[in-house]
Amino acid sequence: MNSSNTSCSERTAFNLIQMNGTWTRHNGHCQDKEGKLSDAKIYENKSDQGFSWTVVSPIVFTYRVIQCKDLLDPRNDTLLWGHIKDEELKGPTRNSKPVKRFIVIDKTVHELYGSKVSQYFDAKGVIYKILPLPTTEENKNMELVTRILEEVHQFGIDRRSEPIIALGGGVCLDVVGLAASLYRRRTPYIRVPTTLLSYIDASVGAKTGVNFGGGKNKLGSYVPPVATLLDSSFFQTLPLRQISNGLAEMLKMALMKHRGLFELLEVNGRKMLHAKLQPSETCGGFEQEDGAAASMRIAIETMLEELAPNLWEDDLDRLVDFGHIISPELEMEKSRIIQCMLGLELPVWHQECSLVLVQKSFRERLRHSAGSLRMPLPTGLGRAEIFHDMIEDNVIYQVFQKWTEELSTLGCNQIN
Amino acid sequence: MNSSNTSCSERTAFNLIQMNGTWTRHNGHCQDKEGKLSDAKIYENKSDQGFSWTVVSPIVFTYRVIQCKDLLDPRNDTLLWGHIKDEELKGPTRNSKPVKRFIVIDKTVHELYGSKVSQYFDAKGVIYKILPLPTTEENKNMELVTRILEEVHQFGIDRRSEPIIALGGGVCLDVVGLAASLYRRRTPYIRVPTTLLSYIDASVGAKTGVNFGGGKNKLGSYVPPVATLLDSSFFQTLPLRQISNGLAEMLKMALMKHRGLFELLEVNGRKMLHAKLQPSETCGGFEQEDGAAASMRIAIETMLEELAPNLWEDDLDRLVDFGHIISPELEMEKSRIIQCMLGLELPVWHQECSLVLVQKSFRERLRHSAGSLRMPLPTGLGRAEIFHDMIEDNVIYQVFQKWTEELSTLGCNQIN
Repeated sequence: MNSSNTSCSERTAFNLIQMNGTWTRHNGHCQDKEGKLSDAKIYENKSDQGFSWTVVSPIVFTYRVIQCKDLLDPRNDTLLWGHIKDEELKGPTRNSKPVKRFIVIDKTVHELYGSKVSQYFDAKGVIYKILPLPTTEENKNMELVTRILEEVHQFGIDRRSEPIIALGGGVCLDVVGLAASLYRRRTPYIRVPTTLLSYIDASVGAKTGVNFGGGKNKLGSYVPPVATLLDSSFFQTLPLRQISNGLAEMLKMALMKHRGLFELLEVNGRKMLHAKLQPSETCGGFEQEDGAAASMRIAIETMLEELAPNLWEDDLDRLVDFGHIISPELEMEKSRIIQCMLGLELPVWHQECSLVLVQKSFRERLRHSAGSLRMPLPTGLGRAEIFHDMIEDNVIYQVFQKWTEELSTLGCNQIN
Repeated sequence: MNSSNTSCSERTAFNLIQMNGTWTRHNGHCQDKEGKLSDAKIYENKSDQGFSWTVVSPIVFTYRVIQCKDLLDPRNDTLLWGHIKDEELKGPTRNSKPVKRFIVIDKTVHELYGSKVSQYFDAKGVIYKILPLPTTEENKNMELVTRILEEVHQFGIDRRSEPIIALGGGVCLDVVGLAASLYRRRTPYIRVPTTLLSYIDASVGAKTGVNFGGGKNKLGSYVPPVATLLDSSFFQTLPLRQISNGLAEMLKMALMKHRGLFELLEVNGRKMLHAKLQPSETCGGFEQEDGAAASMRIAIETMLEELAPNLWEDDLDRLVDFGHIISPELEMEKSRIIQCMLGLELPVWHQECSLVLVQKSFRERLRHSAGSLRMPLPTGLGRAEIFHDMIEDNVIYQVFQKWTEELSTLGCNQIN
């Protein structure tokens, strides 16, 4: 009971070992102990206030992103069993229980592919329910999530072995992901993106979400799908404008991380756009990867590189946040980028992008980003860094003036 | 292009390294590389269908469980800064921004402690909003979650540094936990349990939840609080019946994992119940731990042991699932356990516990537990195992008959 007892506190680190279903704490080294050692740790602290414990518990998320052809062909098992790693567990022979699947599909996608989806599950002998929903930005809310949850609850699924399947664009994948992550605290789900943008963006990460209180994606979770199944043949029925949207996302990743992808888009962008990224007839499949296939692969690889180490966004510095901010750093390669964007039929200006809006955006960013600007900017083609300091108002003003003048000179101030 | 190309596929493992804000994949060893190495990994597979990637991304959850005295005394910093690890970051001097806190409090707790909570935050110079809610089992639904989300959104908090505080029993902690885990995909929250049951149960784990579609906790998430703050002085205003409820949970952990805790409850249980687990006057604080303090500490330690290695319940075999199942394994120490339960003023029977109900419970368990019974049972005092095989109907019948006969002989078939 000397004075050091009150100022210092005793700290003990514990490992956790399981034997016969029971976990117990062990102080010190555990190599010689029998049983299963957990990666989790408990640190115990004793002070004059009582005890305190710090729990450190790692959860490992594992998910698959799978490119495939003919996803809706009943001879292809991927839609039904692609999420399972162990080959032996696949197929209806694994046990006698009938297989069930709940499918949420965007309404427009349902009009185009609904009968193929039904035929697929009929051919596979699966008990299924297809729920077509209007998954637009306007409907991206908790009501839609609740609608899905009610139908899933009524249909009944095994919370560990019967994944919910989402078929549609980014909104559909986000909304279904949130519903699945909430149902019984986590039900596996599968993402099948049908737009180019969701193919390379929403489908590869862990984020789910809906709009709330006037804010975009204000509610959501970070729970990855068990699998994302990528079939680019869905793009054949997309309007060109939606292909452009997706190419813009690719271009972002190219500017930020991959000069080779930029060069692919620069050379082949317009052709890829109008061929809707379908493989050219002369190209013999994936053994000889064409420009479209290479672009999609690189876009996914660069996206996965940024997402995998930061799945829960513990690090707020995210390169993929690169948005609509204009910077002198771009000057040198600016006209090359603009020419590439025009080739992809992307707008390079918008009438509502006023100086006031730009300044407001910077302030909002500062407010919502824990006091730092965290602005990802290209520092050359395919290279980027994250900048933290606020930019002074007069600098923003000068850059804005220069940019608008140049655009009118270039004659490319069209609005898409 | 030989036949092995189509049957085999190439698999490459990548580590991820960050430099200047950009993550890049690296094949092979990375010890000599500069930059930050991630724990995440990407495995790439090339087949004739295209590419596939397996992402393995560990997320480390760290949270604190802190016992303390006089939590609502303005001289105590714990409620405001107890969740922050680094001592230097604590206190209002860390930056000039005013500190904000949003507090959700159970309505009954608010009547008893509301003014003390206001006085605390007033004294600390905090901008705060207190939201009292009727957090009963009947109201444990998404509507209550939405109510909290609307108020939080209107109040405005920093999603990384301004935790939402929940003050109440298990329902309050579960509902606020779910709201916080949804808001901006994850907002930190703090649990302050005011009942004995939530002190040793809901407060130490990661589970959040609400009822849905007639099912208990059908919607929820696994997101631990940043901190759980434990002050047993709240129990002073609890009815005795609620103390008994909490002691039942303690007894469960004792039977499953800790013979010493059972002996504490056996010897001191009745005294602890009627003293509402408050420290005895003669006991000089935590330096000399009394029976109540020791019981609470052991209950938390044993609970943390089971939760920390299985935070997301990837392992469905959970000892803490031990419920109302009766087993011959208990026979030997049965009367000792029953005497202890009577001391804690717990019911040892319920009129609705019919043979039909028991049989139905077993079947439901089998249905919801991925085809295995997973029944945790004591195999002696303070030892337990998890049993998987279904028990035959005639065995259940015999055990049930024997049990009801014995109870009537013992004269302890009272209903609480």
